[in-house]
Amino acid sequence: MITLSIDIQDRSYPIYIGSNLLYQKSLLDRHIGGSEIVIVTNETIAPLYLSRVVNHLRDYRCTEIILPDGEQYKTLEGITPIFDKLLKNKFSRSTTLIALGGGVIGDMAGFAAACYQRGIPFIQIPTTLLAQVDSSVGGKTGVNHPLGKNMIGAFYQPLCVLADINTLNTLDERQFKAGIAEIIKYGLIQDFNFFLWLENHIDQLLARNQDILIQAIERSCQNKAAVVAADEKESGSRATLNLGHTFGHAIETGIGYGTWLHGEAVSVGMVMAANLSHQLSWLSHHDVNRITHLLTQVGLPIQPPKEMNTQRFLELMAVDKKVANGQLRLVLLKQLGAAVVTSDFPYSLLEETIEEFYRY
Amino acid sequence: MITLSIDIQDRSYPIYIGSNLLYQKSLLDRHIGGSEIVIVTNETIAPLYLSRVVNHLRDYRCTEIILPDGEQYKTLEGITPIFDKLLKNKFSRSTTLIALGGGVIGDMAGFAAACYQRGIPFIQIPTTLLAQVDSSVGGKTGVNHPLGKNMIGAFYQPLCVLADINTLNTLDERQFKAGIAEIIKYGLIQDFNFFLWLENHIDQLLARNQDILIQAIERSCQNKAAVVAADEKESGSRATLNLGHTFGHAIETGIGYGTWLHGEAVSVGMVMAANLSHQLSWLSHHDVNRITHLLTQVGLPIQPPKEMNTQRFLELMAVDKKVANGQLRLVLLKQLGAAVVTSDFPYSLLEETIEEFYRY
Repeated sequence: MITLSIDIQDRSYPIYIGSNLLYQKSLLDRHIGGSEIVIVTNETIAPLYLSRVVNHLRDYRCTEIILPDGEQYKTLEGITPIFDKLLKNKFSRSTTLIALGGGVIGDMAGFAAACYQRGIPFIQIPTTLLAQVDSSVGGKTGVNHPLGKNMIGAFYQPLCVLADINTLNTLDERQFKAGIAEIIKYGLIQDFNFFLWLENHIDQLLARNQDILIQAIERSCQNKAAVVAADEKESGSRATLNLGHTFGHAIETGIGYGTWLHGEAVSVGMVMAANLSHQLSWLSHHDVNRITHLLTQVGLPIQPPKEMNTQRFLELMAVDKKVANGQLRLVLLKQLGAAVVTSDFPYSLLEETIEEFYRY
Repeated sequence: MITLSIDIQDRSYPIYIGSNLLYQKSLLDRHIGGSEIVIVTNETIAPLYLSRVVNHLRDYRCTEIILPDGEQYKTLEGITPIFDKLLKNKFSRSTTLIALGGGVIGDMAGFAAACYQRGIPFIQIPTTLLAQVDSSVGGKTGVNHPLGKNMIGAFYQPLCVLADINTLNTLDERQFKAGIAEIIKYGLIQDFNFFLWLENHIDQLLARNQDILIQAIERSCQNKAAVVAADEKESGSRATLNLGHTFGHAIETGIGYGTWLHGEAVSVGMVMAANLSHQLSWLSHHDVNRITHLLTQVGLPIQPPKEMNTQRFLELMAVDKKVANGQLRLVLLKQLGAAVVTSDFPYSLLEETIEEFYRY
């Protein structure tokens, strides 16, 4: 087992990465204060892991909340069952909330933990690759609004994160690949050596080789942790983590939450950002090709959805959080392994870049 | 104008107390970053102050949100119009949200500010006495749940608070008196000299004498600030601020939000806590009488609502946030000016104390 420490002032916490961590009660015991816990999971994960996890936690007064599975349920309404059940059963503010599931469950349960009685202790057990390398690190929690993704939420750090790679065995191919999109992102924004390593190990990663998986998760979490430690509330540098996300969120909102997976939308978003970076003469044509080649090897999409068009993209991108004082800011690549957050590009170039994708 | 500084680590902020602050644009300019603002107020306050406030802020891109007036609207659903309007009009995360109104508006708007895009800047302009001396200090924001008051929320500090005593001129008598309940609370929990001062100046305070009002507000905010600075997240000593609130919340939930005013419920709650403190031989009969006498002079209720009974009280008190690991903790008085948070009392004594109030 590897232990990574995420250092955010007085809210630092460990990420445990390894196999079969799910049933190591002592790991959880170390972090749970008080005698009450609530496990929030979804209909897909519950039959796989819930009863065994609960069994290991019999010492606690425990309740379970099973939400429907899917990004389309990640709404303010979608988290009210958590509040309802906790209050109905009189769970106090010393209750520890455990999120068992992918990024959607982590975001919803984390936000519920942030809000219940103004904040209760919170533990993440991410069961998807995407959640293990991304959403479980950094404390972003929240829900979607019909007019924008993750528009309602909180920065709220967990007590610990337990990334059990065995849970990835049950992950379907599409979900697994979507997770790799975010792993590649770390290489692109700040870790060129990791990008090289990924180019060299992509087949083993796709084959879910345990050692390669652990290395990829660890390196991803380290990358994210470094960014988050420097800028918890995303006032500056943290925004580089959003490479591909402004385009990606536009896709997710544009075609309806839950149609594309987040990682799939980010994959296309990174290609679009790379193309704009190329238009700005920052990336070479060869660089852009390396990116699309790697994403294609994984089996990730590199073309935006046909159902959308340039106008719709621009509209939806304007509402994204990365807009400061009316100016659209994007994460672009100065080179492979070096992202910048910038609004210093001609708007027409952005239009042209998107247009290019719809010329087919 | 008096400026009080609330010191909470990196989130310190000033409270300005005085007359006619509402229209001093420079005060707001000092704190608003960016070019966008949204003013959240309610149907009662809007006709009185909104257009004049907006007029002074014409330099900014400004939108207004007018919510219905009343505690019964302080729900998760009740704050969605804020998110809807901000997103529809593409307000960015550098927008400053200004809460113009009483405690309910402050709680709702503050919570919306805490959640919109995971937190936007926030300014409080409390227009009731209760909000000026209580809810605008300390960063508690949130909404009610059918099963409990303030059960969903966040700790979120404003950039500044502007307490304009002129807004109290339009405050109806009942609201004004409800505010005095919280002022008396500060005397009871930790400032015996202030309690004495209140006994001596209660007539002038009720007459809304400007100097006396400013003194009472300042002293109250100082008291609250001291407690909050020592324990922002209410892990310990801050809970003394809840004197009368566990009983009070039971009343508000028991008879339906908005029927009694919060300050009225707290008034009765303080009398009930004082009675239990007397049962524990901490307060003398004379002490209890001084409390009920002062509250009665103000015109505040000192008897719980007839619609409730002992059983209902105990049920509702059990769900209150002050329950730690199944043990009911209450704020009681060791003497006038000295509150303690304790679960060290026989449960039967609590039952008897409530029973006593229903013996008539």
